[in-house]
Amino acid sequence: MYDVIIIGGGPAGSGAAVYTGRKRLKTLLITESFGGQSIVSDDIQNWIGQKSISGYDLAKNLEEHVRAQETVEVKIPETVTSVKEITGGFEVFTNNGNQYQSKTLIVTAGGRRRKLNIPGEDQYNGKGVAYCSTCDAPLFMGKKVVVVGGGNAGLEAAIDLLPFASEIFVSVRSEKLVADPITQAEVLKSDKIKIIYNHVIKEIIGEKFVTGIKYDEQGIEKILNVDGVFIEIGSIPNSEMMSGLVTLNKMGEIITDHRLATTSKPGIFAAGDVTDDPYKQNNISVGDAVIAALSVYNYLLKIEK
Amino acid sequence: MYDVIIIGGGPAGSGAAVYTGRKRLKTLLITESFGGQSIVSDDIQNWIGQKSISGYDLAKNLEEHVRAQETVEVKIPETVTSVKEITGGFEVFTNNGNQYQSKTLIVTAGGRRRKLNIPGEDQYNGKGVAYCSTCDAPLFMGKKVVVVGGGNAGLEAAIDLLPFASEIFVSVRSEKLVADPITQAEVLKSDKIKIIYNHVIKEIIGEKFVTGIKYDEQGIEKILNVDGVFIEIGSIPNSEMMSGLVTLNKMGEIITDHRLATTSKPGIFAAGDVTDDPYKQNNISVGDAVIAALSVYNYLLKIEK
Repeated sequence: MYDVIIIGGGPAGSGAAVYTGRKRLKTLLITESFGGQSIVSDDIQNWIGQKSISGYDLAKNLEEHVRAQETVEVKIPETVTSVKEITGGFEVFTNNGNQYQSKTLIVTAGGRRRKLNIPGEDQYNGKGVAYCSTCDAPLFMGKKVVVVGGGNAGLEAAIDLLPFASEIFVSVRSEKLVADPITQAEVLKSDKIKIIYNHVIKEIIGEKFVTGIKYDEQGIEKILNVDGVFIEIGSIPNSEMMSGLVTLNKMGEIITDHRLATTSKPGIFAAGDVTDDPYKQNNISVGDAVIAALSVYNYLLKIEK
Repeated sequence: MYDVIIIGGGPAGSGAAVYTGRKRLKTLLITESFGGQSIVSDDIQNWIGQKSISGYDLAKNLEEHVRAQETVEVKIPETVTSVKEITGGFEVFTNNGNQYQSKTLIVTAGGRRRKLNIPGEDQYNGKGVAYCSTCDAPLFMGKKVVVVGGGNAGLEAAIDLLPFASEIFVSVRSEKLVADPITQAEVLKSDKIKIIYNHVIKEIIGEKFVTGIKYDEQGIEKILNVDGVFIEIGSIPNSEMMSGLVTLNKMGEIITDHRLATTSKPGIFAAGDVTDDPYKQNNISVGDAVIAALSVYNYLLKIEK
């Protein structure tokens, strides 16, 4: 039986494993891959302490740091599909048909961006197609971009792009915006932002990088030339395997007490994009994961008296 | 008038400045130095994503990342001595006789370890003398160490050292332990830990690294040979200039809502060791600081409608 199983190997899972390892806890980290959602970025400029790093290098550094911990075992590629409570802890089941038991869990399974599922979207991911305006807006200085999404995320992305992009189109599928009125007002007062309603994008096109989008206008195929496409139609937490075991909010995020990274179930801790953190950022995920690891350590000291 | 003044340039202050800079906020960071308390460490092994980095290099990397932000101005070396509320924001006063105004504040002033103030303590800081068992315990694998302090911090440090050190002395000034009974029980059951009561250390001695401590026993000067001295007699938050303006707990730490890094006063945000974070760790401070920066951005959007 492990002291702790960490579900996920993004920045949060890796940070948790380094700390449980340094506390000499018998740790199992199960992940599909290291690095999390940032792995597709060519140039991360907001990983604090490094002016610029690629997602690939960040993932490699995180994996190396985890593997330097003697008491941490890694199962990769493997995905946790369900979790149940057992006497003295928890049992997790994976897509490989394996099961593992532990006294505690740290859930750092991250989230996944809702996608448009159109041609070019995957091909140009990180090459003009972006899913995080806070991360990537500064890369589009002086460029023309389109933001897809008329909800809060879409309009907030347009606002994030204001100091950088030269021209910002907001592509809205329906005939009106659904964002908060206060955010709408902010967007509507800018000359730089143009909202296009009833707009359905068919394809993202480019060469090495994005050069534009194809869309339909009354049955006629048209092209809008842009350098960037920010897809902001929501994000889905990877919390499915925890449902029924810990309390989720209406977006499916695990509700945590952010001071101690606890969840509604004693012995289960959570950090990063799978939680109800209002801002999804790598450094925030890591900080919360370190809290989770230290809380696990204190929890084990207490129950093992 | 600045959008935000950041007080402190440790990992928290630096992290906040990178994010406010990327949001193009007119930012002033005021600090005595970059890097915070870790700057004395020769070998930090728990800065997530880097297996090993010196405090000096971490400080340099943080400073570089901050200085890469066009909208961030840095005043160094300069220390904020007091803060008052003014119409539309705050005014800070510094040890150089300067004063600056801003709409918001992020307090990341850190903390300072309580010291023994004996010969050798400063000289061997980072060379056998340590103030953070969570950070430095793994460096003392197979070594003899003394922990100074009979409170919770002291005994928890002894527990942190258990998987690593070969022999652990706990030096207690009075004739009894003051730690929680549960922590005392944990310590007393270990054969590796020896508690020395009525113990007053006079000097820390060494060559390149610590080799021992000098103490008095009934008027006779004695030497105990050890490789490490963990000084765990408490930490003091650098929150003096904020007292009266935001709510502090009884330890003088700024009480924050950890989900949004807010304090009791709208417009003032706080992160890192100056707050009531239960665990004081670099990565936690950075995570909280990123939250503070994003909360400042949202706060300004709201008040500037």
